[in-house]
Amino acid sequence: MSKYKVTFLPDNKEVEVEAGTTLLEAAEKAGILINSLCGGEGVCGEDRLQIIKGKANLDPNTIGFFFKEEIQAGYVLACQTRVEDNLTVMVPPKSRLEKERIVTEGVAITLPVYSEPEKITLPRRPRDPAAFFEPIVTKVYLELPKPTLNDNISDVDRITRELRQKLRFDSFRISLACMQDLAARLRGSEWKVTATVARYFNDVGRVLNIEAGDTSSRSYGLAVDVGTTTVVVQLVDLRTGKVVGVEANHNLQARYGEDVISRMVYACTHGSLDPLHKAVVANINTLTQAIARDKGISLADINAIVAAGNTTMSHFLLGLMPCAIRLSPYVPTATVYPQVYARDLDIDINPQGILETMPSVSSYVGGDTVAGILACGLADRSETSCLIDVGTNGEIAVGNNEWIVCCSASAGPALEGGGARSGMRATKGAIEKIQIMDGQVRYETIARARPRGICGSGLIDAIYELAKNRIIGPDGKFNVSTDNKRLLVEDSDPRYIFAFSGETDTGQAVTLAESEIGNLIKSKGSIFAAIKSLMDYIGMTFDQLNNIYVAGGFGNSLDIRKAIAIGLLPDVDVGKIQFIGNSSVMGARMALLSVPAFEKSISVAKRMTNIELSNYPPYMNEFIAALFLPHTDSKLFPSVRY
Amino acid sequence: MSKYKVTFLPDNKEVEVEAGTTLLEAAEKAGILINSLCGGEGVCGEDRLQIIKGKANLDPNTIGFFFKEEIQAGYVLACQTRVEDNLTVMVPPKSRLEKERIVTEGVAITLPVYSEPEKITLPRRPRDPAAFFEPIVTKVYLELPKPTLNDNISDVDRITRELRQKLRFDSFRISLACMQDLAARLRGSEWKVTATVARYFNDVGRVLNIEAGDTSSRSYGLAVDVGTTTVVVQLVDLRTGKVVGVEANHNLQARYGEDVISRMVYACTHGSLDPLHKAVVANINTLTQAIARDKGISLADINAIVAAGNTTMSHFLLGLMPCAIRLSPYVPTATVYPQVYARDLDIDINPQGILETMPSVSSYVGGDTVAGILACGLADRSETSCLIDVGTNGEIAVGNNEWIVCCSASAGPALEGGGARSGMRATKGAIEKIQIMDGQVRYETIARARPRGICGSGLIDAIYELAKNRIIGPDGKFNVSTDNKRLLVEDSDPRYIFAFSGETDTGQAVTLAESEIGNLIKSKGSIFAAIKSLMDYIGMTFDQLNNIYVAGGFGNSLDIRKAIAIGLLPDVDVGKIQFIGNSSVMGARMALLSVPAFEKSISVAKRMTNIELSNYPPYMNEFIAALFLPHTDSKLFPSVRY
Repeated sequence: MSKYKVTFLPDNKEVEVEAGTTLLEAAEKAGILINSLCGGEGVCGEDRLQIIKGKANLDPNTIGFFFKEEIQAGYVLACQTRVEDNLTVMVPPKSRLEKERIVTEGVAITLPVYSEPEKITLPRRPRDPAAFFEPIVTKVYLELPKPTLNDNISDVDRITRELRQKLRFDSFRISLACMQDLAARLRGSEWKVTATVARYFNDVGRVLNIEAGDTSSRSYGLAVDVGTTTVVVQLVDLRTGKVVGVEANHNLQARYGEDVISRMVYACTHGSLDPLHKAVVANINTLTQAIARDKGISLADINAIVAAGNTTMSHFLLGLMPCAIRLSPYVPTATVYPQVYARDLDIDINPQGILETMPSVSSYVGGDTVAGILACGLADRSETSCLIDVGTNGEIAVGNNEWIVCCSASAGPALEGGGARSGMRATKGAIEKIQIMDGQVRYETIARARPRGICGSGLIDAIYELAKNRIIGPDGKFNVSTDNKRLLVEDSDPRYIFAFSGETDTGQAVTLAESEIGNLIKSKGSIFAAIKSLMDYIGMTFDQLNNIYVAGGFGNSLDIRKAIAIGLLPDVDVGKIQFIGNSSVMGARMALLSVPAFEKSISVAKRMTNIELSNYPPYMNEFIAALFLPHTDSKLFPSVRY
Repeated sequence: MSKYKVTFLPDNKEVEVEAGTTLLEAAEKAGILINSLCGGEGVCGEDRLQIIKGKANLDPNTIGFFFKEEIQAGYVLACQTRVEDNLTVMVPPKSRLEKERIVTEGVAITLPVYSEPEKITLPRRPRDPAAFFEPIVTKVYLELPKPTLNDNISDVDRITRELRQKLRFDSFRISLACMQDLAARLRGSEWKVTATVARYFNDVGRVLNIEAGDTSSRSYGLAVDVGTTTVVVQLVDLRTGKVVGVEANHNLQARYGEDVISRMVYACTHGSLDPLHKAVVANINTLTQAIARDKGISLADINAIVAAGNTTMSHFLLGLMPCAIRLSPYVPTATVYPQVYARDLDIDINPQGILETMPSVSSYVGGDTVAGILACGLADRSETSCLIDVGTNGEIAVGNNEWIVCCSASAGPALEGGGARSGMRATKGAIEKIQIMDGQVRYETIARARPRGICGSGLIDAIYELAKNRIIGPDGKFNVSTDNKRLLVEDSDPRYIFAFSGETDTGQAVTLAESEIGNLIKSKGSIFAAIKSLMDYIGMTFDQLNNIYVAGGFGNSLDIRKAIAIGLLPDVDVGKIQFIGNSSVMGARMALLSVPAFEKSISVAKRMTNIELSNYPPYMNEFIAALFLPHTDSKLFPSVRY
């Protein structure tokens, strides 16, 4: 097949591609990201490129996107134009997409991020719901005509008349607080104001605020992952979709219990969830203030939050008593949550700012999983995929655009770096990769700092390397007869040293004890048993899955092969497995940036079928069988050899 | 024409009617009120009677309302059955209507009130919007199925699943406050709870409260008329539509100014409407507590308020700054007001209870006028009618089911009994009727008490009688040369004594001064000039009006002939003029009891065309011409002779 060269300007990047490749694919190969909202369907018209040299045919179906002058100047849509010649192509700034990537996330899935925010125009109706850029709160600058005796409609009507032109809502609700001194504000600002408008429900907009002057350049929101162990906050620029900053900290609820069960027991025996509610609010406020201070952003310019968490975390956040979640028949107060003012939860953003909570499916499949399904696109495609979200509770979902079944298993915090002396989150100084060869330990840390502990991906590597080097057996027990200067025994609990105290940032050695390895094996066993049980329940084999998305707070360096080798992930073609990082915060951000995505999350949550593993006897056998490296049934892991 | 006798059982009341009279009319003549929601259109099927003896033909069009057995048993619809024989008719309890009537209201227009509330079933959709009984807040008792592993939907979903069966809403919003300890409340009450649900908007219900047990027998609301001079509160049983009690008091805002203009000046020069807001809230709270205490009703069982007032009053009530209302181009902050929690305005009812405000048309045609239009049915009929609402601001509306034009005129409080030394509201001891004959003054007081002052209807009588007896001239000036022991001159302001100090309850004489008569003439002149101007504007004559509805706080005894004779009302056939009392509180009560009526008020307000009299030069000439008894142009009042 013939090959052609394509040169992209102004970057001057050149790639060689096969005839018939689209310009969109060629650009991707050149590392240039093109703004293609519709995902290459030729319907959004955003991915406009200009052919400078060489011959390329304009697809006649796309003519409607261009003026005559533009066609003569050689404009085409990248996704609908195939390379049949050597080409030189200009990428206009507006067609450019900036990829963003942050420490707590994995790879591959990114939302469109615009390089020229001021040029965004909102179409009246989305074409592709999941990717349509329409933040759940928008600021709109209005220059209103002054009232006259012939046009003396009320101030509110004057504003909504204008908003109806600019936004897709049929009607608007304006809070009383916002109305109360509206008359003076409009007149004091010469009728030039900025309206902050939230999607309320369906076609109803909610006017949160009317500010004097043009404040539309300062519009921010928060995507929050309320994890049982870790809380992550992303501060997002709602004009551009860009993540301005991200911070994470340990969930302060940990003092009331390590997992959701013990925290519910605390709340329900004390008759109050107040301390737990306050703890998670303190998490969010601390993180938000830290980012805002760091980036020089005022809290008053933050008007929206989308929070994703498991059902118990969502209940604690909203102040809903979760006692009926804990015991059979496991009933939450709500699975779809009302839009509330953030101030009503004591969250410090603009006093008129709102908080939406990602919907849950059931007591043990929560908004974090629904967010993950949004993020990986499982519900958008006809092929069947699997999402494995590894957290303190592990959730598994299998399905496609027609059906989704899901389940959850209590995995404990071990794989997130919780519960072990040297365990830590994936932040600076965490060992994220480990290799043991000939008794030598090599490791890599995040930000190449001196080691402070081991994060999830490092722990998976650690177990794999210990087993591979036969320092531990398939049962996770140390071969203590080995003469190894890295092995010491403390309180009859053998412990392996990955970094000696002299190497570390803290002066404490980074180690892993047999008991801690046991917890990690229980965690991976419970996750794998849940995946296996769910597949058996629906009568499918692992090979029938087109994609497996792995989400969780492991850090960025999860080694899929090693995760398979310890028996955490099923032994399928690694090409089918994709690590997507923190899919909860990613889905929350998609909902924050896209009303259709948020609405889709509600419809997805409603059509997910939850399987209660506690009600499914084979699960316990699967769990016991999985407490081995990789598994007691080696036929399940044909590719694994230690 | 032949006549027939109709006997109604079980009352055993007999009337004689002409052939062709409907049974509905015959029952009315017999003093038996039949529940005819649709007003005799044959579409509601509520006015079912059973023919016991005699021959009556069932209208074939109404067959669909009956089962075969009922037809055989002689059931007919009262409004669709004409008397052509002597009949004995049974009135089933469900078909019976109880008429209610209160002191502050006039005659004729009453809402359907049910005698057997427990049998009310809400049809899914109304047939006749204006009269459909569906309170804006409803209590629904629910016995929920307990959750099981096979039915473990969320508590909220369990409730809305049941509510969707019982109410017409498509979806429900539940406040966070209501959700927060819902789980415990449901389980503590064995899943037997009462939901309080408000109409939020369109097809969305708002669950305000979930109470343990069955509290549905205690469901009350308030209809409030926020008048510039007088505030009226009716406490209404939302199960039956019955008015449980009514109280009125002087608007406490009076200390900040007598009319809306001076109160706006106060608020706007002081930069705060807080004292005015608090004053009217104190009015409402005082009245509500008084009725509730008197009737033994808990404030916690009041969950809804509908308030009607002019646009300025509505703004003060809701805390909206009204400064732009006052000056050209007369712009209110809003004309359609948001549903708010009453507690947010410091009104003491159930903390989850809501307040709706009747929509306004413009700065000077307010929710009280819209309520009046609802009450008199002007917007429901094809014939053209006129509503004259006499208050501190007088509002006039002319129109039919296709168009309505309206205007307002500042009338002052004189005709409500304000501003005059002996003026008073229509309460116990007010002189409501006066006759002067041969120098003798005869009067009647409300509740036959010793006189305390004169209310509106008495003042109209007073002026008429003084003029008729030539004690005052057509210019309202006393003929001081008359030797009359009832005439005294104080500060060069002649004053007529209607009741000497010895006759009165207070020990003070009840009198009327020339200056006070001057104010009354200005008031009546401004109202008449407004009516005349509006009719001229639309090019109609008084004769073309089919009905003239007169509303206002005159008391119950307004003498239409005397009101014409002093030139307040146009000189048309008195049969066309109907005094309907306080139509503002009446319309507010209709909206409280009927979601379709409330929704209709919004659509009516939107299609009303407001004529600014201040922008209509002929008005001032009309006003000056009307400062005479009855008028400077006597051809306008051909029937009036003094």
